[in-house]
Amino acid sequence: MRPIIPDYLVEALGDVEPDASGAPAAYIPELAAADPERLAAAFATVDGRVYGAGDVDVPFTIQSISKPFVYALALADRGFDPVLAKVGVEPSGEAFNEISLESGTGRPLNPMINAGAITVHSLAGPEGCGPADRVERVVDGLSAFAGRRLSVDQEVYGSEMAHAHRNLAIAHMLRSHDVLTEDARTVVDGYTLQCSVVVTTRDLALMAATLANRGVNPLSGEQVVPGRVVRQTLSVMFSCGMYDAAGDWATQVGIPAKSGVAGGLIGALPGRIGIATFSPRLDRHGNSVRGVSLFERFSSDMGLHVMEEPSAGQAVVRSNHVVGSGPGALRVLELQGGIGFAGAERVVREVLETAPTETRVAIDLARVHAIDDVARRMVLEVARRLTLDGHDVHLVDPETILPDPDPGDGGRITVVQTVEQAMPAGA
Amino acid sequence: MRPIIPDYLVEALGDVEPDASGAPAAYIPELAAADPERLAAAFATVDGRVYGAGDVDVPFTIQSISKPFVYALALADRGFDPVLAKVGVEPSGEAFNEISLESGTGRPLNPMINAGAITVHSLAGPEGCGPADRVERVVDGLSAFAGRRLSVDQEVYGSEMAHAHRNLAIAHMLRSHDVLTEDARTVVDGYTLQCSVVVTTRDLALMAATLANRGVNPLSGEQVVPGRVVRQTLSVMFSCGMYDAAGDWATQVGIPAKSGVAGGLIGALPGRIGIATFSPRLDRHGNSVRGVSLFERFSSDMGLHVMEEPSAGQAVVRSNHVVGSGPGALRVLELQGGIGFAGAERVVREVLETAPTETRVAIDLARVHAIDDVARRMVLEVARRLTLDGHDVHLVDPETILPDPDPGDGGRITVVQTVEQAMPAGA
Amino acid sequence: MRPIIPDYLVEALGDVEPDASGAPAAYIPELAAADPERLAAAFATVDGRVYGAGDVDVPFTIQSISKPFVYALALADRGFDPVLAKVGVEPSGEAFNEISLESGTGRPLNPMINAGAITVHSLAGPEGCGPADRVERVVDGLSAFAGRRLSVDQEVYGSEMAHAHRNLAIAHMLRSHDVLTEDARTVVDGYTLQCSVVVTTRDLALMAATLANRGVNPLSGEQVVPGRVVRQTLSVMFSCGMYDAAGDWATQVGIPAKSGVAGGLIGALPGRIGIATFSPRLDRHGNSVRGVSLFERFSSDMGLHVMEEPSAGQAVVRSNHVVGSGPGALRVLELQGGIGFAGAERVVREVLETAPTETRVAIDLARVHAIDDVARRMVLEVARRLTLDGHDVHLVDPETILPDPDPGDGGRITVVQTVEQAMPAGA
Amino acid sequence: MRPIIPDYLVEALGDVEPDASGAPAAYIPELAAADPERLAAAFATVDGRVYGAGDVDVPFTIQSISKPFVYALALADRGFDPVLAKVGVEPSGEAFNEISLESGTGRPLNPMINAGAITVHSLAGPEGCGPADRVERVVDGLSAFAGRRLSVDQEVYGSEMAHAHRNLAIAHMLRSHDVLTEDARTVVDGYTLQCSVVVTTRDLALMAATLANRGVNPLSGEQVVPGRVVRQTLSVMFSCGMYDAAGDWATQVGIPAKSGVAGGLIGALPGRIGIATFSPRLDRHGNSVRGVSLFERFSSDMGLHVMEEPSAGQAVVRSNHVVGSGPGALRVLELQGGIGFAGAERVVREVLETAPTETRVAIDLARVHAIDDVARRMVLEVARRLTLDGHDVHLVDPETILPDPDPGDGGRITVVQTVEQAMPAGA
Repeated sequence: MRPIIPDYLVEALGDVEPDASGAPAAYIPELAAADPERLAAAFATVDGRVYGAGDVDVPFTIQSISKPFVYALALADRGFDPVLAKVGVEPSGEAFNEISLESGTGRPLNPMINAGAITVHSLAGPEGCGPADRVERVVDGLSAFAGRRLSVDQEVYGSEMAHAHRNLAIAHMLRSHDVLTEDARTVVDGYTLQCSVVVTTRDLALMAATLANRGVNPLSGEQVVPGRVVRQTLSVMFSCGMYDAAGDWATQVGIPAKSGVAGGLIGALPGRIGIATFSPRLDRHGNSVRGVSLFERFSSDMGLHVMEEPSAGQAVVRSNHVVGSGPGALRVLELQGGIGFAGAERVVREVLETAPTETRVAIDLARVHAIDDVARRMVLEVARRLTLDGHDVHLVDPETILPDPDPGDGGRITVVQTVEQAMPAGA
Repeated sequence: MRPIIPDYLVEALGDVEPDASGAPAAYIPELAAADPERLAAAFATVDGRVYGAGDVDVPFTIQSISKPFVYALALADRGFDPVLAKVGVEPSGEAFNEISLESGTGRPLNPMINAGAITVHSLAGPEGCGPADRVERVVDGLSAFAGRRLSVDQEVYGSEMAHAHRNLAIAHMLRSHDVLTEDARTVVDGYTLQCSVVVTTRDLALMAATLANRGVNPLSGEQVVPGRVVRQTLSVMFSCGMYDAAGDWATQVGIPAKSGVAGGLIGALPGRIGIATFSPRLDRHGNSVRGVSLFERFSSDMGLHVMEEPSAGQAVVRSNHVVGSGPGALRVLELQGGIGFAGAERVVREVLETAPTETRVAIDLARVHAIDDVARRMVLEVARRLTLDGHDVHLVDPETILPDPDPGDGGRITVVQTVEQAMPAGA
Repeated sequence: MRPIIPDYLVEALGDVEPDASGAPAAYIPELAAADPERLAAAFATVDGRVYGAGDVDVPFTIQSISKPFVYALALADRGFDPVLAKVGVEPSGEAFNEISLESGTGRPLNPMINAGAITVHSLAGPEGCGPADRVERVVDGLSAFAGRRLSVDQEVYGSEMAHAHRNLAIAHMLRSHDVLTEDARTVVDGYTLQCSVVVTTRDLALMAATLANRGVNPLSGEQVVPGRVVRQTLSVMFSCGMYDAAGDWATQVGIPAKSGVAGGLIGALPGRIGIATFSPRLDRHGNSVRGVSLFERFSSDMGLHVMEEPSAGQAVVRSNHVVGSGPGALRVLELQGGIGFAGAERVVREVLETAPTETRVAIDLARVHAIDDVARRMVLEVARRLTLDGHDVHLVDPETILPDPDPGDGGRITVVQTVEQAMPAGA
Repeated sequence: MRPIIPDYLVEALGDVEPDASGAPAAYIPELAAADPERLAAAFATVDGRVYGAGDVDVPFTIQSISKPFVYALALADRGFDPVLAKVGVEPSGEAFNEISLESGTGRPLNPMINAGAITVHSLAGPEGCGPADRVERVVDGLSAFAGRRLSVDQEVYGSEMAHAHRNLAIAHMLRSHDVLTEDARTVVDGYTLQCSVVVTTRDLALMAATLANRGVNPLSGEQVVPGRVVRQTLSVMFSCGMYDAAGDWATQVGIPAKSGVAGGLIGALPGRIGIATFSPRLDRHGNSVRGVSLFERFSSDMGLHVMEEPSAGQAVVRSNHVVGSGPGALRVLELQGGIGFAGAERVVREVLETAPTETRVAIDLARVHAIDDVARRMVLEVARRLTLDGHDVHLVDPETILPDPDPGDGGRITVVQTVEQAMPAGA
């Protein structure tokens, strides 16, 4: 069988290829010299399959796409409070290189603008670590997101440092507000190294998939940063990742995203997919022209939009029936699918509405493939209350999908492998 | 059995009740006179079950919570282009009553600030409709979201008009930019009526649930606005709904939300739930103090955050096995759960990796409870390509979960009710 | 003899006449219909001579040129504190119709932008006076500045009210901050009438000359507003009168000035001259193109720049000599010119350095044409100290240029008509 | 005789001495350690007399007071166009250390804010001069303004460089806009040296008097910068010198001024006086508290306000009479005082109105002590036209107050020493 998704990607690239509008970044010769025709797109699934088309293995510098990842590293390394004390999470509605410091405190408005990203760089690694260790931590961390060892393009780094006037301005300003507490130039130097890390479109798709997969790299299985950090990072990407076009992006594309001045663009749809594109010509916002077109198409074609969730759990209760009769009758609630709060609510309601008269009740999880913590607690609470009402509660859980099934506080549950095992002996 | 969710809500209300910080809005006597102790919370599921605790049936005026709903009505009535031409979607990072017009065009930055909401009011109803018809359309529309007939508090309306200096200023400014094209005072009058619509916490929960349910009111079943309009509305709520605290809210709570100056607060989590709270004391951003606390708790307790998606479809392919042997052998792909793009990708991959040698292939949807359009098309494409490769493709779809199963272009599918029916006669 | 200044004006008009750049204001038909070729310039001296060239008697509406005059009227009518409490004096660096309210208080930044001028209009006339009386006060006051009865162009007034969206916006905003305390529309109505007062270039030159002449109309001799009010008004005109081009104007032209959207432009050089020009085509700042050129030329040709003062009083002490000899010798200090602080300082120094040994000292004011209050007090103090040192002090003041010549506190002065009268009898 | 002005100054210092509000600048130890009780005031006349009271010879660093002087040097060294191309003249209405760059170009709004002053420093000295030569040029230039050799406080310089974060930020930002074209740190280094030049209150008064005296140091007689440059500098000081309190200062004090963070404050009233005060405690605008009080008093007591000009030349024509009779009769116009445009206008008018029938006309300048260029040209034109009308024109100019008395183009003038010499021989 010919591959479907690669076909789709090839077709999508073909459609945007003729668009030669925009221009590569020109502020350093190394970027200006990029081949403007390069074009690539890749999808990485949360279990690690990568689909690519075009120049997916051509290397380029990560640039601002490093921002969300190093933000995640800093949150993981220092905790939320120290990072939030230094860098806000409010959209600035401004271009990437605006200073946008909070009036009074000098706190950068968010980690996606340069002022925020420079500050965030200074917060990577353990407190008190020196500049060299910090850079190592950052490159290690980015490598962990990508699932392979990444390196720095020393030429781009050198050239960017020679043109880092605005970032130096920003860093000195941050230093004057004590948002930075060390030498301004040293921090800009480290930040510039961070931006000069070399990636491919394939790498970026996997990095994005690591975000989509709650911080676990789908290939290496490494938990690069905690899930709570990923949630924070994706939220900030959603409202601040695309600079002054953030609102258009949020409504039209709806995928937490980040672009880089070398032409890269990533998107991460939580629980679903990581996407990356590469095309060096930029629009006036500094985002890749063809990359933006590709994302618009992906979002539209595939319903990839955070606000476009299928109504989950509509059929969480697959059946509600009685097996057997008389005193040995067993009330069976057969559940299915992945169960979160909304699904658990249905289970609770089903039990309430049924008000089972049978002494024995079985909650059958054989067709359930995932249950989150709140749903687990709700199911246990149902079991507890059923116990208190005099029921004998069985949990059919052959794959131990619901760990530690102790309802506590007067509740009792018998775990069994099949519905049959929940029936009275001799039934 | 004692009810679980109401218990939870009662407990949550009890926890925030002692917090008497903040103050009711004081700019008109009617709001200042609100009983500051009122407290309510309600959940409405996407299939219409409402759980409430506290003063869920106490009436109050909807105020700014009307903004996202009337935005949705205007998008539905006029289409996207005319509305986007007049009102942007960029977060303003400013207080609700800032003018925040786009420099040059005078276009309000987004529909959640007053300038945007006043403009949006003028865009409700069909083009050319008069002020009275427009107000009727707005009240009808809000009623449709709530699932019952709503009315206007004439006293609040009168008092707000007498203090509408700033809104009049904004409207005259919009008029001077031709963003409004009719009498400024008339539009403010209609907008003030819109804000004076009376709702209860229960109503608001159902209105939010209608947004969570792709625009279909869970009780009445009415498609109040199209799904695409809801997606736009939720996106804008997410980045602009909580004014200058939008970023904090987006990261910490992560639920598209909107607050009103009378103390209401709603949140809509797409596909999952509508939430509403009511408590009149406001913080300095104009958001209900206890309402914000409740939402923070709900989000944290129940994982209700748009960026916190469970990894969907991890077990979409429940089994991949062969039934029978020899020429009559049937390759069976047993799928389960709800299937979107990410799930369909797994199916595609499974087929590719299996490269089945059996002539007969069955795709078993018996345990699938939902399949979205892109997934449907991908499954059909798999079937088409399998046909082209010489396979005989059967779709086991007893509940017709996959409508119109024609793969087209050389593909062929035989729909059956059971796996058995897919086996060769006499097998 | 052919007239020199009119010749100069005619020549200047001829030089700017070919410049057809810019365009008349177009926001109301009445202004758009102005003959764009109209061109006039007039000088009015502080003793009431008016020189004009071109269309000096063509009527047009005063528009924003009313702002400084009504500011002066409000300061005169209400006193400084109430006016300064409502309207600041800081340059805004913004266009005329920007709202530019002080953050927090809502106080307009200065009286030359519309927000400030609308507020100032509300402060004209005695406190508590009604709208009609206030308009009458304003028209009366403007008439007093012009030295003849002015009237209102009702058509322009009506048309401007129909297009007053932005001013209404501003007024409602001011009302929302309680900067305005009455009905917003009523104030805008009065302000629009104020702007619709009809003047000629000749009128404007005389109005400017009244400012240059410390508030005394050079023709009527009426003290329209006090000198302290004029100083305030001229200072504000200097830094805020030309909107966002204020700094260019202040440096290059250096004449306190104000322009109007109908094409008028005035300048007042304190103590020297009032200037007015008229040409309806405006530049992007809203200032008359040819008017600005004319002022640049006048300033450059004639050294009319407030920072270009001739060094005053360099020869205040015309001679310092002794008449007669022996005990009857008279030390004579012959002064000349106009004497202010700087001149008086020289007199003081001359006396100190001379340390006259003669008993008789005469201060001869026969050639002095003006002496200001501080100089008068310094001269009297010199006289007092000379008395205390044992001198006999005579003041030769045939024209009573120094009123009330009592040095007080032990000082004594004999006023005489000629130096001879100061000599001892029989000398 | 006891001295009057020193008495006045001592009294003024005594009145402000008890005010201990405000605090010395604290950002570097050297400034924080300043004796906050230091207090001085000095007047310097345009002919070089200095009056002082208090600590007039205590040295301190010039800081921002260097800004207008180095602006004048840069204008003199490079010409107006290159300087205006880099630094605007618009008031910023902001604090001294705001970046305030013109949107787009990155041009600092004016030379009195740090961004402008740093840029201006880079423009001192001839184009292409190196950093060391530039610093030498600046120190030389400041010394020339003061009339004595000034030196740099190396400790203050070193300490300020160690805390120059914000200025470095500004300089890098200017570098990023190519407003600065050399190494940002080098320019800040030079600028910091400039600010660390040591002066006394006496020095500052003389520096201000040099500005008041059209650029000529009253003591040395050196033309430090051209008069046109001084006019520009004073205009900018007037509207931008006192930062965000510029409007209050312009209206209330009305003296072009500049303050420094070490406690110095200067004012220059063109043609009249230079003033300096010293008191280290600063208000929230960064201006010396007691310095501001002293200036308010000086302005109020002595009418020292640029908009408070005595009406000049009211008696320019001292007499208009005929000497002799018959064909030898001589029409004599006896003029007096200093004559500028306004005065010359009166002369022109007098001649026109007289329409003398006498053949001989004498313009008597014996009592005139100054005549500016435009007045000179107007008087010559009067003479020329009188010649053309058949008159015999004599100029009585014993002190050659009117140089080069050639009316040209058909005019003829006979210069004489006395009115008698203008009469016909034998009369």
